[in-house]
Amino acid sequence: MDFKLSDEQELIVASYRDYMESENWETYFHECDEKHEYPLRWTQGLCELGLDRIMLDEEHGGLGLEEPLTTLMAIYEVLGQYGAPTYVLYLLTGYNTIVREGTEEQIEACLKYLGTGEQVVNSACTEPGAGSDVSGLQTTYKRENGKIYLNGTKTFITSSLGVKYLIIMCRDADNPDVISEFFVDMSKPGIKLSPLTKLGLRMDSCCEVYLDNVEMEEKDFFGKEGNGFNRGVSDFNFERWLVGACDYGTAISAFEDAAKHAWTRIAFGKPVARFQLNSLKFAHMAIKLDSMRNMLYETAWDADHNLGGDVDAGRAAMCKYFCANASFEVVDDAMQVMGGIAVASEHRINRIWRDLRVDRVSGGTDEMMILTASKNAIKPYRQ
Amino acid sequence: MDFKLSDEQELIVASYRDYMESENWETYFHECDEKHEYPLRWTQGLCELGLDRIMLDEEHGGLGLEEPLTTLMAIYEVLGQYGAPTYVLYLLTGYNTIVREGTEEQIEACLKYLGTGEQVVNSACTEPGAGSDVSGLQTTYKRENGKIYLNGTKTFITSSLGVKYLIIMCRDADNPDVISEFFVDMSKPGIKLSPLTKLGLRMDSCCEVYLDNVEMEEKDFFGKEGNGFNRGVSDFNFERWLVGACDYGTAISAFEDAAKHAWTRIAFGKPVARFQLNSLKFAHMAIKLDSMRNMLYETAWDADHNLGGDVDAGRAAMCKYFCANASFEVVDDAMQVMGGIAVASEHRINRIWRDLRVDRVSGGTDEMMILTASKNAIKPYRQ
Amino acid sequence: MDFKLSDEQELIVASYRDYMESENWETYFHECDEKHEYPLRWTQGLCELGLDRIMLDEEHGGLGLEEPLTTLMAIYEVLGQYGAPTYVLYLLTGYNTIVREGTEEQIEACLKYLGTGEQVVNSACTEPGAGSDVSGLQTTYKRENGKIYLNGTKTFITSSLGVKYLIIMCRDADNPDVISEFFVDMSKPGIKLSPLTKLGLRMDSCCEVYLDNVEMEEKDFFGKEGNGFNRGVSDFNFERWLVGACDYGTAISAFEDAAKHAWTRIAFGKPVARFQLNSLKFAHMAIKLDSMRNMLYETAWDADHNLGGDVDAGRAAMCKYFCANASFEVVDDAMQVMGGIAVASEHRINRIWRDLRVDRVSGGTDEMMILTASKNAIKPYRQ
Amino acid sequence: MDFKLSDEQELIVASYRDYMESENWETYFHECDEKHEYPLRWTQGLCELGLDRIMLDEEHGGLGLEEPLTTLMAIYEVLGQYGAPTYVLYLLTGYNTIVREGTEEQIEACLKYLGTGEQVVNSACTEPGAGSDVSGLQTTYKRENGKIYLNGTKTFITSSLGVKYLIIMCRDADNPDVISEFFVDMSKPGIKLSPLTKLGLRMDSCCEVYLDNVEMEEKDFFGKEGNGFNRGVSDFNFERWLVGACDYGTAISAFEDAAKHAWTRIAFGKPVARFQLNSLKFAHMAIKLDSMRNMLYETAWDADHNLGGDVDAGRAAMCKYFCANASFEVVDDAMQVMGGIAVASEHRINRIWRDLRVDRVSGGTDEMMILTASKNAIKPYRQ
Repeated sequence: MDFKLSDEQELIVASYRDYMESENWETYFHECDEKHEYPLRWTQGLCELGLDRIMLDEEHGGLGLEEPLTTLMAIYEVLGQYGAPTYVLYLLTGYNTIVREGTEEQIEACLKYLGTGEQVVNSACTEPGAGSDVSGLQTTYKRENGKIYLNGTKTFITSSLGVKYLIIMCRDADNPDVISEFFVDMSKPGIKLSPLTKLGLRMDSCCEVYLDNVEMEEKDFFGKEGNGFNRGVSDFNFERWLVGACDYGTAISAFEDAAKHAWTRIAFGKPVARFQLNSLKFAHMAIKLDSMRNMLYETAWDADHNLGGDVDAGRAAMCKYFCANASFEVVDDAMQVMGGIAVASEHRINRIWRDLRVDRVSGGTDEMMILTASKNAIKPYRQ
Repeated sequence: MDFKLSDEQELIVASYRDYMESENWETYFHECDEKHEYPLRWTQGLCELGLDRIMLDEEHGGLGLEEPLTTLMAIYEVLGQYGAPTYVLYLLTGYNTIVREGTEEQIEACLKYLGTGEQVVNSACTEPGAGSDVSGLQTTYKRENGKIYLNGTKTFITSSLGVKYLIIMCRDADNPDVISEFFVDMSKPGIKLSPLTKLGLRMDSCCEVYLDNVEMEEKDFFGKEGNGFNRGVSDFNFERWLVGACDYGTAISAFEDAAKHAWTRIAFGKPVARFQLNSLKFAHMAIKLDSMRNMLYETAWDADHNLGGDVDAGRAAMCKYFCANASFEVVDDAMQVMGGIAVASEHRINRIWRDLRVDRVSGGTDEMMILTASKNAIKPYRQ
Repeated sequence: MDFKLSDEQELIVASYRDYMESENWETYFHECDEKHEYPLRWTQGLCELGLDRIMLDEEHGGLGLEEPLTTLMAIYEVLGQYGAPTYVLYLLTGYNTIVREGTEEQIEACLKYLGTGEQVVNSACTEPGAGSDVSGLQTTYKRENGKIYLNGTKTFITSSLGVKYLIIMCRDADNPDVISEFFVDMSKPGIKLSPLTKLGLRMDSCCEVYLDNVEMEEKDFFGKEGNGFNRGVSDFNFERWLVGACDYGTAISAFEDAAKHAWTRIAFGKPVARFQLNSLKFAHMAIKLDSMRNMLYETAWDADHNLGGDVDAGRAAMCKYFCANASFEVVDDAMQVMGGIAVASEHRINRIWRDLRVDRVSGGTDEMMILTASKNAIKPYRQ
Repeated sequence: MDFKLSDEQELIVASYRDYMESENWETYFHECDEKHEYPLRWTQGLCELGLDRIMLDEEHGGLGLEEPLTTLMAIYEVLGQYGAPTYVLYLLTGYNTIVREGTEEQIEACLKYLGTGEQVVNSACTEPGAGSDVSGLQTTYKRENGKIYLNGTKTFITSSLGVKYLIIMCRDADNPDVISEFFVDMSKPGIKLSPLTKLGLRMDSCCEVYLDNVEMEEKDFFGKEGNGFNRGVSDFNFERWLVGACDYGTAISAFEDAAKHAWTRIAFGKPVARFQLNSLKFAHMAIKLDSMRNMLYETAWDADHNLGGDVDAGRAAMCKYFCANASFEVVDDAMQVMGGIAVASEHRINRIWRDLRVDRVSGGTDEMMILTASKNAIKPYRQ
């Protein structure tokens, strides 16, 4: 066994740490959060360091790392420690989906944005009547006069405001059992976005997307017609693991803020670090951080070494469920240690606290994660 | 034993219920919350119903109820059920402190606002270096040339923006062991208020209060000189119980919102009410609501019947700690049942969720409540 | 509202308290537990005080109390406070089932034991393949030559060793949809009992019951033929509430033992009562005891005043689930406060701790209680 | 990073697995537990495989493993999976303490038992008035006429019945600040052992040890005179980590028993594995097992590679606290899945459940672990 990063990974981590130390990014994050704006200036810098190339194969500009997921994990860890909103980065590490499933044209359309830090392409599945249960999907595509027309409404679509392309899941209007995806240029007529107000994660957008007779062509299918549902599923596992990595990362910053506070804040003649009720919180925080860390790294290692880069479904679900909840608890405990400063000021901890709540719902609810994690855990014991 | 309200109490509750049904107050609350404004139009109506007279003796305009606390509890319960921000009402039920401790002049100054629904007078104790531990208090008063001058900074002072008077705790600069309170007219020169951004409870203000040579006279003492610390303590218990009542009340609205949602939202072919993971949440919500309700009512009943209107310190601490936490858990579970609607919309549940977090810190932290509740619980077993 | 007992109830409670003070019953309980013996000498005394007459109507020897359940609750509370094994008393308070459903002959057969403290009659439903789900029931009755023959196996049958009669649920072998009950004299040939080793509750028995062609007659039906399932259900609610009352009661004794210990045990120069990690436990214990107490009393009061003595199904499930778990947590916390004495001695607390674990399974599992409690809590919100 | 065992370690694990498969050891364990007997036949076999040589240096017969703690961890994992009482093995892996601190004579006296599987030597610190706080220590040694005499009482001394030697901590009667240890031959006159009844861990003994003028010589000091307290502390960390390893191991067996049960037990027409309330339990069990596993292995790896075989104090405390509690929760959940079989039979799960409760008190209470884990976690943030 070996619980430490390789020298190469340590060097990469150091470059990101330097970047985070290069200015007081918190000021910028706070401003972006207040304005509900994507922190483009920050993501540009990350892409200069190669963040959007980590998961890509070398042929398409990737870095050719031996352990891409483990490395990505280490980067998220250091970014999180600085309170950075890693939740805005999903699209930047998702280009391999396009490379795997897309046409040459689609791939080029996306990859030309490599290095820009912009949000380029995301997929859209959820609808008002179809969340975890896709069977309720009502958005349709219909062939007519050599064209294809999309109609319907998507909701809770994260990172959708401003993207160039959206991969939209829909049913064949004439053959409702067939579920396919389209690679939709968002500048087309008939598309309307309506931003939703979120409790947290406010540097990223979340929109309703209305599709009114959006005209597509046969070349605009994303992946094989009829394969829409399966395509999505295979990428979910990576995403779920990554949500866990995000959540864990930011929890570190809250823990460190609280630990520093506890040594400097004096009450009843001693640092509040010395009160047993705070010791209990710190012990629990430490246990949760340790557990998340290892769970996430082991999952990454397993994907890198045993599964050809794919994330195991059971471990992905476990990571998302555990980290979303444990991180929230860590941050909540940290807030309690910090007292008034945490709840009645503009300290980053209360932004992070709101952010984390959203992750127990979005990207697969806790409940779906529990069922998947359990299923995978007990499968080997079935006779 | 008897677990039901009296007929008179039922009538009073009905009048408040009618008031809450008289318009869609939620629209107004949402607007006030967004703007960080006190909901004066709503509190005026409450005062027309007599809310600010419940805790007063008849001589000063009180309603002469036999069980004022039990009745107040029943009112908070119905207001909470409608998602109302009862947390803005503390000052309206606090006039009896003024009556008990104040001079004729001070009493008149305050009571003339009876029925207006305005926030008139609050007390200010917390300082940057003195929270639960008052020994760090640094605000001072100094007698000079027949006048008295206040200097110092108070922080996290709830309901302070716009009040007419503030009761300010400070030390005698020449005799630091003496802690006294002053009844300060907020229009005086030398006072500056700086509002803080809070995570929640945004219809109420929270300010830093700067006192720069504020000139007072001997008649401006509030209560007996040197009695500052004790005065405050005796009112804390009522307030803590009332925080519990607030928190419990709003938890009801979240529970009801979630229950209605669970019957109408369909997934995998059935209402989500039928999924066992939701049943678990509803069972836990029901248990917590039941426990909070009885704990709060018993505490009120005990004060009304056995303690001459005073709230037992141990029970007050238990109510605040338990209700602040259990309410939060109820609302958090309710959010989870409601999913995307709860975290990515302007549904009241996410306002309430933020509001409740603040109460685990303000008005006496969870940690102080735990210590007091424990102390009182085990006291009888000391030999 | 009124949170105190009536004077009559206080007098009754006092008589039970005197009885518990009349000797060091703990010695006797410990001995019975070690030997897996029913504490008959103790139950005889309780019956002299009228315990087995509380739930009976006056015509059959009952005490004619206005609030039988509330009174029973108060008795369980005081017995529990002395660490008494109230879990052996179910049969003593269950005669009204016989009175309601039984024939004259059956009623007489049972009631002649009134006042003896003996375990006389219980019902038997669970089978190896049928627990909460009665549909798996395989015990049958078959009419042949004017007689009826019972065959099958019952398991986990509490209080079955030594009872005079057992009410056995079974299917009509010729008409499997018909489920009926028989009043079975346990001295009949063909009945074999095999005691099971339980983790706790060892003063009460738990057996497998084998029925091999047990000969019955038409007069031996208990209640109407075909009504077997419904009969059972209606009594479950009372039993579930009573499990809650048992569990809560014994939790009091653990709390008191721990509180006394905490004041006398010194570590690091002060009583362990003064360590914040113990304060947290005591605060949580106090909250749970308060919540259980009110939940149980309100349920009793509701049954006494609003439901003609019946216990509401939703409240019964909530009481059993909450009290079985919260009591266990209280006792577990108390053990932790007591340290080595609790885990490495013959202190009653470790008997009670084992006892309580069983109640989360027997008499309706936690899981069934959760579903019932939830169903009842959200029913009013279904449109 | 690397999350798998080395080939050599896999071979070692395989040999232990074969041993556990070589007979139905559970029958033997059950019998030993019932009789409160040390499972000598089983430990002999383990020592034939080299268990008692893993932690020893080669000079004294050790195996010369590169990663002794990691390897020991892997062995405990596989033993635990078979429900084995690894808690009886502490003394077998503790000989390096003797080697490090003992005289040649003491070392030889102990090491001649290598390979026998017997319990040979343990230390004794706790007293009725001195648990976590050693300052209350009252056992004394007094020099008189060229001899040394020990007097006092030790309590809760695990694995003391039948050991050849006990290392006893005591104060110099003439110089109470000096705390030393003696290597005491248990066959000496003046020593009396009185076994205590434990809630669990019944294959190991737990005694009060009475010392009445036990005659010692100068050569019988264990380690340097005056170094008694420090010596103990340095070995605690290894022991605490090992308690965690024990607890985690047995939790695996409970999880696997429950998982198998859940697939075969049918209720309401489907395996109980399919009920969401059970899925929740399995997901939580899986998360806890994963977290414990990594925490324990990382701690072992850290000791093997970075700390020369010593276990970090903070990580040791975290392992003991987290694993004792998480294992208990896993087993408790497993019991709940198994229902009646778990609480009313002789299934190993209810033995394991009792065993685990003891570990939250013995070997350093949860409370002491919390304080140590917290202290270490926040130390780096102190300015």
